[in-house]
Amino acid sequence: MSLSLDRCCIHTITTKLWSLPEAVEHYAAAGVKGISVWQNATEGIGPLRSGEIIRQAGLEIVSYVRGGFFPHTSGAGRAQAIDNNKKLLEEAAALGAPMIVLVCGASPDQSMQKSREQIREGIEAILPLAEKLNVKLAIEPLHPMYAADRSAINTLAQANDMAESFNSPFVGVAVDVYHLWWDGDLEKEIARCGAHGNLFAYHICDWKVNTIDLLNDRGLMGEGCIDLKKIRGWVEATGFNGFCEVEIFSNIHWAKDQHLFLNEITTAFLES
Amino acid sequence: MSLSLDRCCIHTITTKLWSLPEAVEHYAAAGVKGISVWQNATEGIGPLRSGEIIRQAGLEIVSYVRGGFFPHTSGAGRAQAIDNNKKLLEEAAALGAPMIVLVCGASPDQSMQKSREQIREGIEAILPLAEKLNVKLAIEPLHPMYAADRSAINTLAQANDMAESFNSPFVGVAVDVYHLWWDGDLEKEIARCGAHGNLFAYHICDWKVNTIDLLNDRGLMGEGCIDLKKIRGWVEATGFNGFCEVEIFSNIHWAKDQHLFLNEITTAFLES
Repeated sequence: MSLSLDRCCIHTITTKLWSLPEAVEHYAAAGVKGISVWQNATEGIGPLRSGEIIRQAGLEIVSYVRGGFFPHTSGAGRAQAIDNNKKLLEEAAALGAPMIVLVCGASPDQSMQKSREQIREGIEAILPLAEKLNVKLAIEPLHPMYAADRSAINTLAQANDMAESFNSPFVGVAVDVYHLWWDGDLEKEIARCGAHGNLFAYHICDWKVNTIDLLNDRGLMGEGCIDLKKIRGWVEATGFNGFCEVEIFSNIHWAKDQHLFLNEITTAFLES
Repeated sequence: MSLSLDRCCIHTITTKLWSLPEAVEHYAAAGVKGISVWQNATEGIGPLRSGEIIRQAGLEIVSYVRGGFFPHTSGAGRAQAIDNNKKLLEEAAALGAPMIVLVCGASPDQSMQKSREQIREGIEAILPLAEKLNVKLAIEPLHPMYAADRSAINTLAQANDMAESFNSPFVGVAVDVYHLWWDGDLEKEIARCGAHGNLFAYHICDWKVNTIDLLNDRGLMGEGCIDLKKIRGWVEATGFNGFCEVEIFSNIHWAKDQHLFLNEITTAFLES
């Protein structure tokens, strides 16, 4: 299936130099139809007003980013994380976002298995509120290079295991090519994710062969080695026809004129 | 089992500022018993003479590093890689090394599955010479952050699959904690590796929580978040009682006095 901008969503972090109103205006003018809102983008505006601004411009809110970070060695830290996630869910509801993305967290001071148990407990604790507010939870597995302190869920298999264990229409998975492209089980696990109704979101960018920064050197689609069309084919084979969300953290792209960057994004998107 | 320096091997790259004779002298003086020799360390000396220098100092040669890099989009590139590996095997035999380590390679211009097929073909092509020279081949799975161009084998499961497919006492696996610590299947796959007689080598260092460089920011044992004692326990549960090979690439550690660094290594080793 060829892509059109009707399925293009951009994460506000991708053009983080723009305020939310600027991003909304420029995305809409470029023909982009969706926006995923990072929490920092609503600061000073508030989620309610942010939602109005977005809808007035004709954009659809795809997700609110990001919850999670459940594991802590202290019970107080875990309770605080649960409170933070509940606040995020309330904001998502005020914004009008149908889903929050969970970067699940990890602690270098305990085993990954322990962290995964705490992630499960955290999701259990916030699930009733998510249901009440009608906001879904998308577990995002992160690349193994983030296993120390960002996520103890590092493969789609682990995310699928976690999501399936809840057996809830409110708990699913966000598939991000940056984190998962290397996995030999990816095709199989995407099919599994779809078969269980758990494929909630699809994030795209690219993996640069000569990545120079572990966090902020993601590539624009086409700049790297990920076979985006192949992976999108696996995603769409499950029946997924939602937004493809462009999420790029890049010191290099942030240093350029952001109108030029947006133009590069929409051009690259059509070939992804 | 507590560790003693009798099981301590150091890769020459770890103290790359020292020449091979310097490294040998200082390792031996520190009570280190094993050395894994990187190809560059023998330049200007030759493998035969390098082996003599090492044995005269009472050190044992654990492995010669590193072969592999089999995948290429061109047949000429693949043939060249096989020639390079045959040359490396001849050098290993001259050196007196019982094993070479294979960093298997990958090409960003083709699928990882294609690269894995070419890795298999490469190993097939060099295996007769390895048998003839009595030099073993240790497949080293690399961290997924190296999947673009360094290795299409990124989990111990994949390395085990590959090694078992040869069913040869000359093809096994090198388990390096840096590459594998994050994997939820690690305990199971180490047991599997051992059960098939394929656990040829065990490499240690640490994963720093705030890693700042994808290649050269490995931690000294204890500096990071890897539970080294737990993983060594899994390794030893298979019956492995060979060398624990210290392999650290670190701009930070290379910038310090290398005698101080060696002292830090032997101290940290005993707690690993």
